[in-house]
Amino acid sequence: MHKGGLFLIKVGIVGYGNLGKGVQKAIAQNPDIELVAIFTRRQPDQLASNVDGVRFEHISTAEQFKGIIDVMILCGGSATDLPEQTPVIASMFNTIDSFDTHAKIPEFFNTVDAAAKQAGTLSVISTGWDPGLFSLNRLLAESILPEGKDYTFWGKGVSQGHSDAIRRVPGVKAGVQYTVPVQDVINRIRAGETPELTTREKHLRECYVVAEEGADQEQIRETIVSMPNYFADYDTTVTFISEEQLQSEHQGMPHGGFVIRSGVTGEGTKQIIEFGLNLESNPEFTASVLVAYARAAYRLSKEGISGAKTVFDIPLGYLSPKSAEELRRELL
Amino acid sequence: MHKGGLFLIKVGIVGYGNLGKGVQKAIAQNPDIELVAIFTRRQPDQLASNVDGVRFEHISTAEQFKGIIDVMILCGGSATDLPEQTPVIASMFNTIDSFDTHAKIPEFFNTVDAAAKQAGTLSVISTGWDPGLFSLNRLLAESILPEGKDYTFWGKGVSQGHSDAIRRVPGVKAGVQYTVPVQDVINRIRAGETPELTTREKHLRECYVVAEEGADQEQIRETIVSMPNYFADYDTTVTFISEEQLQSEHQGMPHGGFVIRSGVTGEGTKQIIEFGLNLESNPEFTASVLVAYARAAYRLSKEGISGAKTVFDIPLGYLSPKSAEELRRELL
Repeated sequence: MHKGGLFLIKVGIVGYGNLGKGVQKAIAQNPDIELVAIFTRRQPDQLASNVDGVRFEHISTAEQFKGIIDVMILCGGSATDLPEQTPVIASMFNTIDSFDTHAKIPEFFNTVDAAAKQAGTLSVISTGWDPGLFSLNRLLAESILPEGKDYTFWGKGVSQGHSDAIRRVPGVKAGVQYTVPVQDVINRIRAGETPELTTREKHLRECYVVAEEGADQEQIRETIVSMPNYFADYDTTVTFISEEQLQSEHQGMPHGGFVIRSGVTGEGTKQIIEFGLNLESNPEFTASVLVAYARAAYRLSKEGISGAKTVFDIPLGYLSPKSAEELRRELL
Repeated sequence: MHKGGLFLIKVGIVGYGNLGKGVQKAIAQNPDIELVAIFTRRQPDQLASNVDGVRFEHISTAEQFKGIIDVMILCGGSATDLPEQTPVIASMFNTIDSFDTHAKIPEFFNTVDAAAKQAGTLSVISTGWDPGLFSLNRLLAESILPEGKDYTFWGKGVSQGHSDAIRRVPGVKAGVQYTVPVQDVINRIRAGETPELTTREKHLRECYVVAEEGADQEQIRETIVSMPNYFADYDTTVTFISEEQLQSEHQGMPHGGFVIRSGVTGEGTKQIIEFGLNLESNPEFTASVLVAYARAAYRLSKEGISGAKTVFDIPLGYLSPKSAEELRRELL
């Protein structure tokens, strides 16, 4: 299981969008993990002709890889893909996914847990950075500083859901939305304040829009900023740009954010814990988290543990290719 | 084990210095944890007369609390107290300690592991914030971004060892030393640079010294800044102050620092993970970490697990008084 060792963790990828491509790249950075095949609902031959050295398979053939693949990394979306795929794949393989519909996590956990326990497999659900690393830090900070208040800020980064919402507005040809944390508020919290914050006070929304020719820009702007759920509760800016600008300046998928807990110990002694990410590529980073948890899932499964797990259930030592002795010597 | 519930985790404190007092305060913030007694090498009666509502016991009576105390939190120092105390107490109780002599951790682990396994107890060694939370973050960041470089910065904060070294210089009546991270270097790393840094480039050392009457200040300054191991490798400043200033401006024990990993994914995509602490009281914060790990030790022990453990071995969910369902619903 170690670098240069005899045993490699054999992994499959389900879904070949941005996240799946990120997982493929992350596996290449981890010498103890081997990519066996990428499973897709598309025509595998068509994908294979564009990408060298990778085996593509239709998702319907997955069952034939039982006993060959140790862990399947599921790279579909939370809206429709994962609720359907995770329980099915978990009935055959250990799985990792990044299910992120917060309100539905308890229900999703129960469904996957039942499927995995029945099959004797292990499924790590809802990992990545939020849910995932941010959740770990919310838990850690709250457990250490029970008297306090925590704040999660996202960005600056592209929100896929909000970008999709912009693109549905009549007269909009293309567009992208950035979620931007309000720096002044973050500075106040870092200085020890614990303000009660409205949605509007925490984040701004910046929209970059390419309008159809002849479209009424003022009408588009008004439709966007007053859209309920997505933009109405925020200070939203709309900037019209050319298609060329969109291509040259807005193709990256940066993201990041902070979890900050401001707490007190003793007689009002201020203590601040902060975790932050600054990511040039959200999908590549999320993919890297999934791959580290694939290593953990493999090990836990080898120990005979089954069922659904979250980041809260897994010792961090399981994420590393290093032995417990090496970790104590080098990293403690 | 829950708030208002029937079962409380019964804890003892061994050692009543700054850390022990911090643990006492932290227990008061955790309704599921009860302080049974504080064990000391001093005369327990003398301590009891100054502190209300707490039971003090001589350390020699600890054995009488077997079966009564669930976890002993060891608050002695790493130089001489813990190497002696942890194995002895671990042969009777679950323990938590903050052993922080990095080079000796492997040997300490083995000694404690043997004692705890023989006794069927569980010992969490070397927790706190470094080793402890910083170690967790070094491990997490390295596992997710295998290609990268990490940096640990400490401060601004008081270093006890360096303050002691100042006070041993002839002509020095009193003094305190602050370790100060070089902000400019941190900014460069946050911006994506991965510099190779010498000791001198990472931290400054600021000394505030009260000289004996008639002492040669220039001689004191020269002795401090050229002291091998402690100051010679750093840019060190020495400021002479009055005893009143020392009392009014330098009695706090602030500390903190950062673990930053700057890594790449894919084709040179920059990804930065950062964890930081800003602490008004180092001992109170360390104590709060020990108390959260006492909860984890209790639970692991109830599951029949024994031996020495580190922060790398323990799922973070064990630190919280909340159930796994609550954690998934509220924090994931």
